[in-house]
Amino acid sequence: MARISGKLDPNGRLVRLGEAIRDERQRIGISQEALADEAGLDRSHLGRIERGERNVTLLNLVRIADGLGLRTSDILSRAEL
Amino acid sequence: MARISGKLDPNGRLVRLGEAIRDERQRIGISQEALADEAGLDRSHLGRIERGERNVTLLNLVRIADGLGLRTSDILSRAEL
Repeated sequence: MARISGKLDPNGRLVRLGEAIRDERQRIGISQEALADEAGLDRSHLGRIERGERNVTLLNLVRIADGLGLRTSDILSRAEL
Repeated sequence: MARISGKLDPNGRLVRLGEAIRDERQRIGISQEALADEAGLDRSHLGRIERGERNVTLLNLVRIADGLGLRTSDILSRAEL
């Protein structure tokens, strides 16, 4: 999964998605480490996803949503996607 | 993007997503070729996504949703994700 440049994501959709994930994680009061663990992801990878630096795949998005106790569609709605 | 084996997607989430995309495409009466064109994707790649054989990325999902005139979260809701 390549680093995402502005050209690939001109509308900042990945940044909005990352913010929605981070906001929900902070709302329920868990660390990035704890969510990464829950989702079975590497913490630094989750960090890049939260910063909008990765074009996250559907299955990883589902794992993150599961870790937050949300439906994947809920996260996308909050990110207005 | 590797081919997806059952092991990676035991709950068939990618298959459900692909079916939701295909059902909506057929509902609005456009061909796979036309949707692939609209979304800026290769037709065979869209075909694999519709069959649940690819772990589709968020940006490609957004392009497909745009091509169907839907929000990405709508497609995921229809796929119960």
